[in-house]
Amino acid sequence: MTIKDIAALCGVSVSTVSRVLNNHPDVSAQVRSRVMEVVQANHYIPSNSARDLVRTRSDAIGLVVRGTANPFFAEVLKTMEAKVTEAGYTMVLHQIGTCGDELQAGAMLERDKKLRGLLLLGGRSDYTKDDVAALNVPFVCCTYDNSYGTLGEEEYSSVSIDDEQEACRAVKSLIGKGHRRIAALISARNDRSISELRYGGYRRALKEAGIALDETLVEETGSFQMPEAYEAMERLLRRTGEFTALFAISDAMAVAAIKALDDAGRRVPEDCSVMAIDGITMSAYTLPTLSTLIQPADQIAAEAVRILVDRIEGRAAGRHVQVDTILRPGRSVCVKQE
Amino acid sequence: MTIKDIAALCGVSVSTVSRVLNNHPDVSAQVRSRVMEVVQANHYIPSNSARDLVRTRSDAIGLVVRGTANPFFAEVLKTMEAKVTEAGYTMVLHQIGTCGDELQAGAMLERDKKLRGLLLLGGRSDYTKDDVAALNVPFVCCTYDNSYGTLGEEEYSSVSIDDEQEACRAVKSLIGKGHRRIAALISARNDRSISELRYGGYRRALKEAGIALDETLVEETGSFQMPEAYEAMERLLRRTGEFTALFAISDAMAVAAIKALDDAGRRVPEDCSVMAIDGITMSAYTLPTLSTLIQPADQIAAEAVRILVDRIEGRAAGRHVQVDTILRPGRSVCVKQE
Repeated sequence: MTIKDIAALCGVSVSTVSRVLNNHPDVSAQVRSRVMEVVQANHYIPSNSARDLVRTRSDAIGLVVRGTANPFFAEVLKTMEAKVTEAGYTMVLHQIGTCGDELQAGAMLERDKKLRGLLLLGGRSDYTKDDVAALNVPFVCCTYDNSYGTLGEEEYSSVSIDDEQEACRAVKSLIGKGHRRIAALISARNDRSISELRYGGYRRALKEAGIALDETLVEETGSFQMPEAYEAMERLLRRTGEFTALFAISDAMAVAAIKALDDAGRRVPEDCSVMAIDGITMSAYTLPTLSTLIQPADQIAAEAVRILVDRIEGRAAGRHVQVDTILRPGRSVCVKQE
Repeated sequence: MTIKDIAALCGVSVSTVSRVLNNHPDVSAQVRSRVMEVVQANHYIPSNSARDLVRTRSDAIGLVVRGTANPFFAEVLKTMEAKVTEAGYTMVLHQIGTCGDELQAGAMLERDKKLRGLLLLGGRSDYTKDDVAALNVPFVCCTYDNSYGTLGEEEYSSVSIDDEQEACRAVKSLIGKGHRRIAALISARNDRSISELRYGGYRRALKEAGIALDETLVEETGSFQMPEAYEAMERLLRRTGEFTALFAISDAMAVAAIKALDDAGRRVPEDCSVMAIDGITMSAYTLPTLSTLIQPADQIAAEAVRILVDRIEGRAAGRHVQVDTILRPGRSVCVKQE
């Protein structure tokens, strides 16, 4: 008795029988029940080694979220789960801190959950061949690419904004309002990731406008979390008040910075304009509404799942999608006051 | 060759072999590999019907989140995932809208993913025996109980705050500051769930203070989302400005309400005090800091997972845990101005 015999007895294709046996959701309840009846009536054993029996192919796609306190990631996650389910897979979620190792976490998840593919939401941008060698399934880097790494285009997939370019655009929008003393709130100057890229965009915008970089206006938070951003802003304000605008590399950091500015008696935007990147729902309702470049969370999530499923199902090699941000003007930026 | 023979050959217990065959993570890599070697060398078939072979016991715990835009749920989810993993299970996430049917979604997830148990994060509080009949695994209601339902104590588990009591406390804190014209921003008067319970607490606080209920001060949002809360607050403000304080049933709704008040030229707290329930991270950094009763997200998540795992592993029947909120004073409430 082979899988072909079962398929013939059921009047369905071999791949349908296989999908039923592997518990793939993309089969109607009616077909599933007919196939299982025939399988059981014939005492069919779906494979000839115990190993294969136990290791039936799973339908799991892993999602490793690096930096769980990031509200932007919560917005991406929502669409990812819907799209993974829609594609007939199960999403297995694992969350790590901003300092965690997403590749190690992904490799462990892959082994434990027999993943078919992996979505990495947040991560380092400096992977080498060795770094990703432990991953035996297709993976997609979401919200970051491999700017500082050595992987070839074919060796990975990614969906992200152009972080350097968008940061440059954000800072130029402040320069366009007459600001020249523009502070920067970043996670780290050299994280080989989003913070370094956006800091690079900040520096380029200044340079192209003929403004010298003043390192005393740059403060590092060491994380993307709000309490750390608030404290970093306090440090900056203790060191210098000599700026009329602030560029924060994330919405959550900007909201915390506005709080610190307000607690120090500086009104936003009158005393300090604030511009960010992310566009989370909450920052549309803060006082003042945050001016920011919106990263399209739904589009990033949908593209990432589409690319991963294409790779799992053998329809594509490594692909790279760059999405555009959308300016939300908000009320946290104004023309430089005389 | 039976599972007992394999266990004897490996020098481990039958349950260890079973855990290996079922891919349960609670086994060391070393033991797992020894057992699989023996299984393969002996061509052991781990069960005697194809049905059982295909339907090996999974290690999946389902989490159905009802109302994905709720930032409080994002904070609970983080700890839940960590605790589920720690307990040796895999969390399978499924998200539905605030109007979705969590029991139907849970039953489908149970069938598709062969769940061992189910966490319901957000849901109706009026389940009947018939409603939960489709669930064949233990489940825990998180952040709600069954106040309006007919289930016996033994027929379900829950972890929540005392919504009616905590809402009453929040409103009494406003009355304590001299406010008597207190508006309420709720999701719905009769949702047989959290909104109705918290609205009940609002009414009781007024009653106990000898303040007559004024229905014109109550506005329904129809959801827990910020855009709807903002619009509801606009409707309330168009109808009447005759209040000095507002009780909002969630932090996110309160933040949107403060925005609407500000846009209408009413300062918080000078012109209107605002008090809420939830205690999300973001609302500690809004202007002004939101005064709220903090629901302990980590504790709710940890208790829920503990109860569910105890039930899955046969150590307990239905259990009910009620957790206390913690007051975060904030700066959105002040003494009623003369």
